[in-house]
Amino acid sequence: MALVSVLTPILVAVLCVVIALVFRSFQNTKTTSKPESKPKGDERPWVDEDLQDDTEISSKDNEGDDWLDSGGEEELPHVPYTPTRYQPEEMLERSKQFYSLLNQRRSVRFISPEPVPRSVIDNVILAAGTAPSGAHTEPWTFVVVSEPETKHKIRLIVEEEEEINYKQRMGNKWVKDLERLRTNWVKEYLDVAPYLILIFKQAYGILPNGKKKTHYYNEISVSISCGLLLAALHNVGLVTVTTTPLNCGPQLRALLRRPANEKLLMLLPVGYAAADATVPDLKRKPLDDVMVYI
Amino acid sequence: MALVSVLTPILVAVLCVVIALVFRSFQNTKTTSKPESKPKGDERPWVDEDLQDDTEISSKDNEGDDWLDSGGEEELPHVPYTPTRYQPEEMLERSKQFYSLLNQRRSVRFISPEPVPRSVIDNVILAAGTAPSGAHTEPWTFVVVSEPETKHKIRLIVEEEEEINYKQRMGNKWVKDLERLRTNWVKEYLDVAPYLILIFKQAYGILPNGKKKTHYYNEISVSISCGLLLAALHNVGLVTVTTTPLNCGPQLRALLRRPANEKLLMLLPVGYAAADATVPDLKRKPLDDVMVYI
Repeated sequence: MALVSVLTPILVAVLCVVIALVFRSFQNTKTTSKPESKPKGDERPWVDEDLQDDTEISSKDNEGDDWLDSGGEEELPHVPYTPTRYQPEEMLERSKQFYSLLNQRRSVRFISPEPVPRSVIDNVILAAGTAPSGAHTEPWTFVVVSEPETKHKIRLIVEEEEEINYKQRMGNKWVKDLERLRTNWVKEYLDVAPYLILIFKQAYGILPNGKKKTHYYNEISVSISCGLLLAALHNVGLVTVTTTPLNCGPQLRALLRRPANEKLLMLLPVGYAAADATVPDLKRKPLDDVMVYI
Repeated sequence: MALVSVLTPILVAVLCVVIALVFRSFQNTKTTSKPESKPKGDERPWVDEDLQDDTEISSKDNEGDDWLDSGGEEELPHVPYTPTRYQPEEMLERSKQFYSLLNQRRSVRFISPEPVPRSVIDNVILAAGTAPSGAHTEPWTFVVVSEPETKHKIRLIVEEEEEINYKQRMGNKWVKDLERLRTNWVKEYLDVAPYLILIFKQAYGILPNGKKKTHYYNEISVSISCGLLLAALHNVGLVTVTTTPLNCGPQLRALLRRPANEKLLMLLPVGYAAADATVPDLKRKPLDDVMVYI
């Protein structure tokens, strides 16, 4: 009995250590299992899981300030640059015409199945590729899909996720916004449009030695490039609608066999406007609401 | 002694519970104190603190899929939309010309002080404002600064932060990239360029009842708008360079008296190219490197 009493403090200490270890491993299990848990079908907002990998975080953390629109070579020589110069009257006229052109652009969901020349698509992609990018990484991949079976697979993936999104995941407010605008998860244009352009941002590049190379500001760069693409499409009389399919990124990336460093940013169905195309009767803000002059 | 022996298991149990509780509270302290720790002035990368408020997070979490290029009114009527249509040969020609135009654009740091007509600036901002945006929120504010004193204050803010960034905060890799490209924290163009365009994204809007209204995809929308702005500037023969001044957002926002929902996304110095302007002799990727056709 005396022996037991002597041993009691040791027994207590050992048991405490054991329990602390058990508790700790339980805590760790809880922590590591968290990212694996699927979003539940409730009203909580969520983000595309494909965008939540560590690369995305490190690329975000590595932002620098200056875009350095210049190449990856060791020391680039500088060359003279003399862009075309216009007289003030001509400048004013060109600025008016360009605004007038772009102001006629609208997002269109009613797209004609008529074929569109492939070379026109090549040229609008080339135009998009002239965008500036952080450290001139040109972190974009434009996947142009015209093959009907692939288009249909894309539609199935997008509609399946969209239906879940609309019905279960979205906040009441967003669903209400959608109802008001008669948009739902049926995306007929994904079958009908002669081209689907899926725009991937390259979150990082791979150096010859296999190491990852951060692509600074990749999302902003690719979005700027999309701006040029929208202008180029409208300039040739084609229409599209800017969509960002939620939660479909990983599946579409797998379907289109894009590498792990590429994340889907946008999906644009492209073609002529359908003969009976309509758009919501919206207005744009006047200049005074978007510009402040100092 | 017998009493002690009888109590030993109870003593052990109580002690274990106490230790488990202590351990748990220690774990919680570790977890909650993590986000409060300030980034240190070492080589660790960082992000603009102004972008880390809760609004930004909630707007990111609330992303929907479809951009709904339509107004905030209750139920917008639809109207027919018949964009200009071109014959295939004309489409091809227009697509070539547009690509050729944009392909001559370069980021230019050498800007002439010559004055530029104000009405041209108005029109390029109007063109930028035609961009699509999530739920047609048009979440952009373009602050155009021509007043020399304000330009100089902007320069002082940017250069002070830049110098700290370059010298202390940036990763070795990024600083090396910058050295290679002869860029440093002296930004003479901020004084010289006739206009500075500071582009703010509105992370949220304010409803008439004072509540916040989420601006879905505000950063992507404003970046697309910047793409249109770059095209519009180049189209009239003006030059700029895409910059995203780090850590200057809050100070510049205060200087320009922008409200709390607006975050600086980009700063573009705008003017004619200087007579002796040079650019790095870089190339753009060929079409096969940016486009995949299926």
